[in-house]
Amino acid sequence: MSIDVLQTKIRKMKNPSMVGLDPILDLLPTHIREQAYAEHGETLKGAAEAYRVFCFGILDALKDIVPATKVQTGCFQALGFEGVRVMEAVIQYAKDLGYYVLMDTMRGDIDCTAEALAQSYFGGVKVGENTYLPYPCDAVMTNSYLGSDGIMPFTRYCKEGKNVFLLAKTSNKSSREVQDLLSGDRIVYQVIMDLAMRWSIDLFGKNGYSEIAVAVSGKHPKVLEELRRKYDRLFFLIPGYGAQGANGRDVQYGFDRFGHGAVVCAGRSILYAYAKHGSTGEDYAACAREAAERMKEDIGKFVTVL
Amino acid sequence: MSIDVLQTKIRKMKNPSMVGLDPILDLLPTHIREQAYAEHGETLKGAAEAYRVFCFGILDALKDIVPATKVQTGCFQALGFEGVRVMEAVIQYAKDLGYYVLMDTMRGDIDCTAEALAQSYFGGVKVGENTYLPYPCDAVMTNSYLGSDGIMPFTRYCKEGKNVFLLAKTSNKSSREVQDLLSGDRIVYQVIMDLAMRWSIDLFGKNGYSEIAVAVSGKHPKVLEELRRKYDRLFFLIPGYGAQGANGRDVQYGFDRFGHGAVVCAGRSILYAYAKHGSTGEDYAACAREAAERMKEDIGKFVTVL
Repeated sequence: MSIDVLQTKIRKMKNPSMVGLDPILDLLPTHIREQAYAEHGETLKGAAEAYRVFCFGILDALKDIVPATKVQTGCFQALGFEGVRVMEAVIQYAKDLGYYVLMDTMRGDIDCTAEALAQSYFGGVKVGENTYLPYPCDAVMTNSYLGSDGIMPFTRYCKEGKNVFLLAKTSNKSSREVQDLLSGDRIVYQVIMDLAMRWSIDLFGKNGYSEIAVAVSGKHPKVLEELRRKYDRLFFLIPGYGAQGANGRDVQYGFDRFGHGAVVCAGRSILYAYAKHGSTGEDYAACAREAAERMKEDIGKFVTVL
Repeated sequence: MSIDVLQTKIRKMKNPSMVGLDPILDLLPTHIREQAYAEHGETLKGAAEAYRVFCFGILDALKDIVPATKVQTGCFQALGFEGVRVMEAVIQYAKDLGYYVLMDTMRGDIDCTAEALAQSYFGGVKVGENTYLPYPCDAVMTNSYLGSDGIMPFTRYCKEGKNVFLLAKTSNKSSREVQDLLSGDRIVYQVIMDLAMRWSIDLFGKNGYSEIAVAVSGKHPKVLEELRRKYDRLFFLIPGYGAQGANGRDVQYGFDRFGHGAVVCAGRSILYAYAKHGSTGEDYAACAREAAERMKEDIGKFVTVL
């Protein structure tokens, strides 16, 4: 897989969106939790099993209309090893259904740790004569506060068809505290994007976009517009849509004139759409599909994917 | 536990150092790997079991001379859920032996994900009527690129005796690319430290140090000296000792005049000390202890812990 493959999937479905899998126990439909607890007790294993059923259901429901998924690793890791076991299954399931799978790790690692993690995502972990790939994803999102040392162990797999997404300008309120600092004539998030460009020299896909992508908030349309113009060879992952407040009108500025070069991510507004209907959640998958279709339409009013 | 507890442990052992548990499969003594593979095959479970035996051995060997340990979560997560299962056991074992345990997650999370992780480290994960603590640690190290939103979910546990360490100035070469940028009259890593101070208002321990600590590289003694003077109420975790090049002379500048306010972390130079002796590793624990004692002596030449 590569950034071209993601773009092709988006073009086929005419839908530049990505579903964020951020399972939160208290927000899951009651019947899913109850069934999992009935089988495994009120344990971390029971909770993890509920995540599995829920995420599989979401992935099943959206597979023909949403081309990509972002797996929020922290949500699964918070359940301990049982959560991680289920995360592995969710990643594999998403791959099997044809999704482009991004692991959102929020980590910034260096040295041996980064190497070891890159092997677990991309290259394979060698144990004696065997090789294992616990997290068989297409891409990983990393935190660049540590600079190049934290990125290179991952970008070396870009030539083998993997992508690396760097957090540049995030969608949370306090992102300005560090990311918006002005240094010389550049804002910190631009420094990250300049680094992404510097590391991209021989990593541009057929669509013209680098295999190293960046996350840029959809909640700041003017910033998005400026960055799209300035960094016209970096693919954008746009968080902040839906529950966090951004809409189709806002995120349109992240796309190029062909409607390419960006993907918009929404999590809670799709996953927990059922709660807005006052439903008990028996129909969570149908509600999620409806929400994903509404999102596609909303973005489609402003962006035409050619 | 709290920053006072860490300081008290350091004073009791007269040793301001911390052993970093960063297991790397290829560097483990051959006999440990072979035994684990014999039992579990050349599998991720076998590899994880080797990590368990190795880390337990290190913790056993140092328990009366080293007061604290830092668990590098990425190394364990790279083995998939079997690695995470062993990480949980290692954290619990270190706690049982009396270590102050810091989980080095390198993550920067926000919102529900940060909440969920904070519960898994500190507050407990509620599943129905039960509460579980998969990672029973004393402190967590986080990445502050996302600003306050990524810190507050963790610092709210400081009043319950937990600590949060923020990455400020790291010890890797490319740390300057982002962390050393000058914005106005402040360097980016100072902005992080200012945030730590701002969040610390009612979080100072009896020793005068905040429950929110920062990681500041030991490889830049002048920076360390300036920061110690300027941020005299922030406790420092000093990485970069040993394999990364810093020594006792360098790290002394991170301490106050009582020899308090800092802890120096070393990983590889202790864990894999056996390899330097040309040993096959049967005596890795004894070699690690010797290396830890040398480190204590080296720091002791320049710093007296009162």
